[in-house]
Amino acid sequence: MIRRVLTGSFLIASTAYLALAATAADQDLRTQALGVFKPLPATMASDDNPITPEKVALGRLLFFETRVSVDGTVSCSRCHQPFLYGTDALPKPIGAEHRVNPRNSPTVLNAALQISAHWRGDRKDVEDQATKALIGFPSFGNPDFGVAMARLKAIPGYAPLFAKAFPGQADPITPDNWGKAIGAYERTLVTPAPFDAYLGGHDAALSRDAKAGLQEFMDVGCVACHSGAGLGGTMYSKFGVTEPYWKATGSKGIDKGRFDVTKDSGDMYVFKVPPLRNVAMTPPYFHDGSVAALPDAVRIMARVQLGKTLNDEQVAHIVAFLDSLTGKLPADFVGVPTLPPSAFAETPSQPAARGGAPRLPTATSPGAGHYK
Amino acid sequence: MIRRVLTGSFLIASTAYLALAATAADQDLRTQALGVFKPLPATMASDDNPITPEKVALGRLLFFETRVSVDGTVSCSRCHQPFLYGTDALPKPIGAEHRVNPRNSPTVLNAALQISAHWRGDRKDVEDQATKALIGFPSFGNPDFGVAMARLKAIPGYAPLFAKAFPGQADPITPDNWGKAIGAYERTLVTPAPFDAYLGGHDAALSRDAKAGLQEFMDVGCVACHSGAGLGGTMYSKFGVTEPYWKATGSKGIDKGRFDVTKDSGDMYVFKVPPLRNVAMTPPYFHDGSVAALPDAVRIMARVQLGKTLNDEQVAHIVAFLDSLTGKLPADFVGVPTLPPSAFAETPSQPAARGGAPRLPTATSPGAGHYK
Repeated sequence: MIRRVLTGSFLIASTAYLALAATAADQDLRTQALGVFKPLPATMASDDNPITPEKVALGRLLFFETRVSVDGTVSCSRCHQPFLYGTDALPKPIGAEHRVNPRNSPTVLNAALQISAHWRGDRKDVEDQATKALIGFPSFGNPDFGVAMARLKAIPGYAPLFAKAFPGQADPITPDNWGKAIGAYERTLVTPAPFDAYLGGHDAALSRDAKAGLQEFMDVGCVACHSGAGLGGTMYSKFGVTEPYWKATGSKGIDKGRFDVTKDSGDMYVFKVPPLRNVAMTPPYFHDGSVAALPDAVRIMARVQLGKTLNDEQVAHIVAFLDSLTGKLPADFVGVPTLPPSAFAETPSQPAARGGAPRLPTATSPGAGHYK
Repeated sequence: MIRRVLTGSFLIASTAYLALAATAADQDLRTQALGVFKPLPATMASDDNPITPEKVALGRLLFFETRVSVDGTVSCSRCHQPFLYGTDALPKPIGAEHRVNPRNSPTVLNAALQISAHWRGDRKDVEDQATKALIGFPSFGNPDFGVAMARLKAIPGYAPLFAKAFPGQADPITPDNWGKAIGAYERTLVTPAPFDAYLGGHDAALSRDAKAGLQEFMDVGCVACHSGAGLGGTMYSKFGVTEPYWKATGSKGIDKGRFDVTKDSGDMYVFKVPPLRNVAMTPPYFHDGSVAALPDAVRIMARVQLGKTLNDEQVAHIVAFLDSLTGKLPADFVGVPTLPPSAFAETPSQPAARGGAPRLPTATSPGAGHYK
């Protein structure tokens, strides 16, 4: 009996000791993590494009709008599907007229945190990306901005929304405002995750494996590039430092990366370091979608960037940590809007309006107003 | 002063009289309407495929699933977008490998009310449609069901969901169950509209124009085919009774309709009468999307089906009535789900999993569990 009581007391005492030790360990880990990472902001503000409710509301519609593309099948959401965590799950996205994009579609979630857009950084920001996507293949496929804007203006419901979002402008339906509206919407797409809760002081937000993985992530050196609020997106880096990347990824072609943009020999095989937010939900991986499994991607990165061979436990821990970056999807992303209907001039004296080339509307026929 | 009071009394009395008269007129109109129309049911039940929460939850995922198609771009939602009232706004939908469907994509909303699926009625019901869409172009493009099911099984998150939805089955991931799950989901996609409120006794649910249009719709004879809860979908009819339809629609090709299915000469140019629910939100119109504006479509139907020429006021009233069929979108349709991520076998001893052909998984890597 005495023995039992003693054992019990010992167990209680040791549990309490372990809990204290865990808290102290968590404090140390958190302090170290806060030196390199940051919790997500509430929105991703821009001096050039202040976020307003009117722009966000319009941008949310435009994000899903297919009718501005050359074949009526491409919207931002075509490659950034809400139900696939802002990606399309393809190695390389397929755009207008089934043309294949040369590089993988990164998630649109938290994307505005980055120094630039696109894998090679050849788009200044999310606004620039959205505007330029209107033109050419494999994205929207329009021959020029004039055609794109004519398609947009053919949907009468947008005129009042552009006027509201860009007050005081005589003709607010412009490619620049298209980019600004979509950009403002995208700047609201943040996905706070268990990792943010942990950084904020909630020890239990991460599993033991995830904490071990966070420590590994910093100790192994991943953090040298994958830092900040996005865990990446803040710098460019050569893919394949210790050996050519394609030997590890099995990539079918060799992409010279940023070199093709800058023609600077120092940019050979250089890509923007991708943010790791929601990485567990957004396979396949790398600029060419050449690797399908996250553990493989982790192993390859340690090998070709850091010259390190991770053991199975290290990989499992890092994957558990990366899993803690899977965040809550924004309500205005997984809740999709209703787009204004196509409407065309009624032509009582003509045989009928044809479904082919859109004609500019003179009147709105259907009222979309009953229910929102 | 007396005069004023009298005038006032007269106005009050006449207003009251008019209100009473309006109520009586509404009662007459409602009684007449209830003779041919029905309010929408809460769900569209099926004896063959009872609606269960587990089937609906799974079907909602599968409805948005692109990875089962041959090029990873086609899901049910590709042609039935939530943000376009369950259509794609194209004259004819574009499916896998950019192949064009021969007929317009009807809305998936309230679709299960119909006697059959597809314009020519060559699919028994929504379940049959969903299952057969897996195979061939221009839909999902799979060569056979085996390939389709292998793609589905390669996403490990689905196995437990199929097991729950179809308990007691040894291998529940089957084409038949794919159709049943999606069908069960689609059977919940009803869109109650102002017209239903009006049928239910709320006089103010319809505008004066819409009420006039409802009366016209019945008087002119549209109701001969467009009746029931769906205002259509209950019968087949020749398109172009008093003259060939293509003379009015300007259709580019001549579609023989159900004749090509049955080879019965009585089925020449026969199509299923499309339901008119949400018609104002789902241009372009007719089996080939040949007409873009709803007023034109109304005028053409009166002309080629009934041999009548409607005046502008009649058309405006009927359009106002059709507008009252625009319903509230289901929360589980405009709120899209998160699909289980692709996951592939980790291959520590292999160079890396490639992004190309999917290999069957032996382990799930990413845990999608943090947030729903």
